[in-house]
Amino acid sequence: MTSPDLGDTTPADLEHILATANTAASEWAQRPAADHAAALVAVADALDAAGAELITVAQAETNLPEARLTGELKRTTFQLRLFAEMLGDGDYLDARIDHADPSWPMGARPDIRRVLEPLGPVLVFAASNFPFAFSVMGGDTCSALAAGCSVVLKAHPGHPQLSAAVGRICADALATAGAPAGLLQLVYGTQAGRDALLDPRVKAAAFTGSIPGGRALFDLANSRPDPIPFYGELGSVNPVFVTRAAAAARGAGIVREFVASYTMGAGQFCTKPGILLVPAESSMVGLLAESARPAPARLLNDRIQSGYTEALQQLRGHGSVQVLGAGDGAFDAPPAPSLSTTTAEAILADPEGLITECFGPTALVATYRDEAEMLAVARMLDGQLTATIQGEDTDSVAPELVRVLARKAGRVLWNQWPTGVSVTYAQQHGGPYPATTAPTSTSVGTAGISRFLRPVAYQGLPAHLLPGALRDENPLGIPQRVNGVL
Amino acid sequence: MTSPDLGDTTPADLEHILATANTAASEWAQRPAADHAAALVAVADALDAAGAELITVAQAETNLPEARLTGELKRTTFQLRLFAEMLGDGDYLDARIDHADPSWPMGARPDIRRVLEPLGPVLVFAASNFPFAFSVMGGDTCSALAAGCSVVLKAHPGHPQLSAAVGRICADALATAGAPAGLLQLVYGTQAGRDALLDPRVKAAAFTGSIPGGRALFDLANSRPDPIPFYGELGSVNPVFVTRAAAAARGAGIVREFVASYTMGAGQFCTKPGILLVPAESSMVGLLAESARPAPARLLNDRIQSGYTEALQQLRGHGSVQVLGAGDGAFDAPPAPSLSTTTAEAILADPEGLITECFGPTALVATYRDEAEMLAVARMLDGQLTATIQGEDTDSVAPELVRVLARKAGRVLWNQWPTGVSVTYAQQHGGPYPATTAPTSTSVGTAGISRFLRPVAYQGLPAHLLPGALRDENPLGIPQRVNGVL
Repeated sequence: MTSPDLGDTTPADLEHILATANTAASEWAQRPAADHAAALVAVADALDAAGAELITVAQAETNLPEARLTGELKRTTFQLRLFAEMLGDGDYLDARIDHADPSWPMGARPDIRRVLEPLGPVLVFAASNFPFAFSVMGGDTCSALAAGCSVVLKAHPGHPQLSAAVGRICADALATAGAPAGLLQLVYGTQAGRDALLDPRVKAAAFTGSIPGGRALFDLANSRPDPIPFYGELGSVNPVFVTRAAAAARGAGIVREFVASYTMGAGQFCTKPGILLVPAESSMVGLLAESARPAPARLLNDRIQSGYTEALQQLRGHGSVQVLGAGDGAFDAPPAPSLSTTTAEAILADPEGLITECFGPTALVATYRDEAEMLAVARMLDGQLTATIQGEDTDSVAPELVRVLARKAGRVLWNQWPTGVSVTYAQQHGGPYPATTAPTSTSVGTAGISRFLRPVAYQGLPAHLLPGALRDENPLGIPQRVNGVL
Repeated sequence: MTSPDLGDTTPADLEHILATANTAASEWAQRPAADHAAALVAVADALDAAGAELITVAQAETNLPEARLTGELKRTTFQLRLFAEMLGDGDYLDARIDHADPSWPMGARPDIRRVLEPLGPVLVFAASNFPFAFSVMGGDTCSALAAGCSVVLKAHPGHPQLSAAVGRICADALATAGAPAGLLQLVYGTQAGRDALLDPRVKAAAFTGSIPGGRALFDLANSRPDPIPFYGELGSVNPVFVTRAAAAARGAGIVREFVASYTMGAGQFCTKPGILLVPAESSMVGLLAESARPAPARLLNDRIQSGYTEALQQLRGHGSVQVLGAGDGAFDAPPAPSLSTTTAEAILADPEGLITECFGPTALVATYRDEAEMLAVARMLDGQLTATIQGEDTDSVAPELVRVLARKAGRVLWNQWPTGVSVTYAQQHGGPYPATTAPTSTSVGTAGISRFLRPVAYQGLPAHLLPGALRDENPLGIPQRVNGVL
């Protein structure tokens, strides 16, 4: 899929890129956060200015409609500006100052001051399904640049021309804003990505994609003589639990909303609700069989289409699974949105055979006989990005269901839908494995910056050698925790 | 070394322990932080009350003197109380509330609220060199319990009777304080530790010890079908850089302080200064050769003694290394404190042969010819727990040296010594690999709690289903970041 002009990065080119990224990281780390913020805004402005041109390139490479791409670009540039705003606050630095204290109960305390500092060059693996928001200038790149790191971006083969165009525009904008050369550079090809991941100059990596792909890179990062943090966002089936009360009160409305969510973007979102649990006695299965579904839409590329067909064939080969609506066109290209059914009992008997992520416009509807069975399914889940409850305020099962799901998922939703992940201060896009390889972090929202920062303590340093964030006079005007008090 | 009464944990016993730890984790996670705090204080009180008895057991098993053990127990119980105090603050929960906002620039924002929640059962591998402070009720256990996790503690074979006694006292105190049964349980034996690390109920692990041991467990944790966070504190040589100005101004004083630091605790600290860089032209090497050193002290156990002898023999076999003071008794048991010398030039030519952690009362003194050579050594260092500068305020090399060392080490010291790691709010005990396997975290200080917490976001939940930390009326009275503003 790589175009002739964008051949795989050669080892010699990669060496030059990594050397430059290393120098750029040192320079960028020493710049004030205000410089980092200004550069992010400059990049956002440049991308907005080039929007029409970029969206044309993206449409040609991804089959995604213009309206969707327009919204995604808006999200991307909004994210850059939101991170720039956060840099002005400075709370993300977690600055702590402990003055020397001879009466500290465990023994005299020295003067210790601690702040978060950039990790160094970060390798980002772009995703296919968000050619703007999780690609060259997506959330991982934005977080790493905001943290003061340089970025080596492994372009996704699904949109090489768009990657090159975005990379060029962003690099130009960064240079104009005074950033060091090579702060953001692109590499192409699987081998270049693997080689970069093993290079000692790379200090962290981020990835959004499939479980097998992400696991292979996670293992590679950990195989290094000096393992590095690997922030992989891998897979999730995003279960939805419909309580009996909710099914009785508004089953038809839930069906409509569910169909809209699992078919959004032709089902190519990591937060697509892939499993819907409904009470067996309700009319919801019938409503789902008859539900109006949007027209078929082409998937991102041929590889996604064939992966979708394979995963769906495997699921439908399971003895417990039936198609909801015959002759549903699920295996056509483009595939028609389609649903399958099974039971909670079957899931409990064979979770691995039935709970698998299937990227594309399909979902599995599972009927449960009682709340105990529904809770049992919740308890045996692997890690998830999201878990959703459709319930009523009076539901007695809700507190326990929330508790169980909060142990499994990074985000728990109530009477809303997981697709459409807003970029906010409180957003959490993560979860236990296999949702991610780093359950203590997020890849969406302002908290994502902490992935690329590490704490450094300074003991006994004279003021002129301390970072500004740790000086008593607080020249940056940021929140400081002094002797334990913010 | 395991006593007959404390044989290796059997698979059947381990299964029971893990099942109990899992149940305890669920219960403990739902208790308010005030309960967690009260339990930590109860444990501290119980350990203090049993101090004399415990110190007698510890002396018999570790060769450590009474005064040192008394101070270490004080540190241990102080740490528990400091964490209890932090739980009352609630800032560590990083509570964030984003209200729904239809005018959010990227599109209408839902109500999203995010808080840190306990990871689940934590497996802690105890260290040998701090039988109180990094063992059964050490910093890792304290952090995990404070976070709301249960703990399975792999006892160190170096002090099994003490481990059992501390475990019993702590379990009793926890039970009396109302904690669930099995909140803290001990396992014995290498195989039980490995089996526990691979068990799906264990959600994180912490380790303090050697590079080979820690790396093997890190690899095991990552080999799981569902990898978990592994917080390993492994190895560090803790370099000390003496500038020309400092050597000229106070070389004799630096020599005295350095000897006190590298021989403290018979050199069995992870922060022992293992390499001292001094200007070649100064009188410091001569002063170091003639320096008064404390009497030999027995090492923790036979395994440490033989490991020390091997590491020192290997170092002394290096062509560039000479003994500083002949017939120095370094290979006796107990070993006399001893120094060796080499040059910065030799280190730059063969870093792997010369920069190795050697647990015991020895250090390597390296002479540099000019500041460029000193900086070159700083730049080629692996990750370190600490790096120290002995300098003068007027040193022109200091700013660059601080910058370089801050990229290498978790803690940078100025005119102080790395041994004696105070437990404070701003402490940072960590660093890039091989100092640790998790450079974004700390194993000492109140920030260590975040290792055992993961963020969970709640979207659209009614107030009665939200955790207290995320309710608008803020019943816990903790810091909340509302719509991005603290």
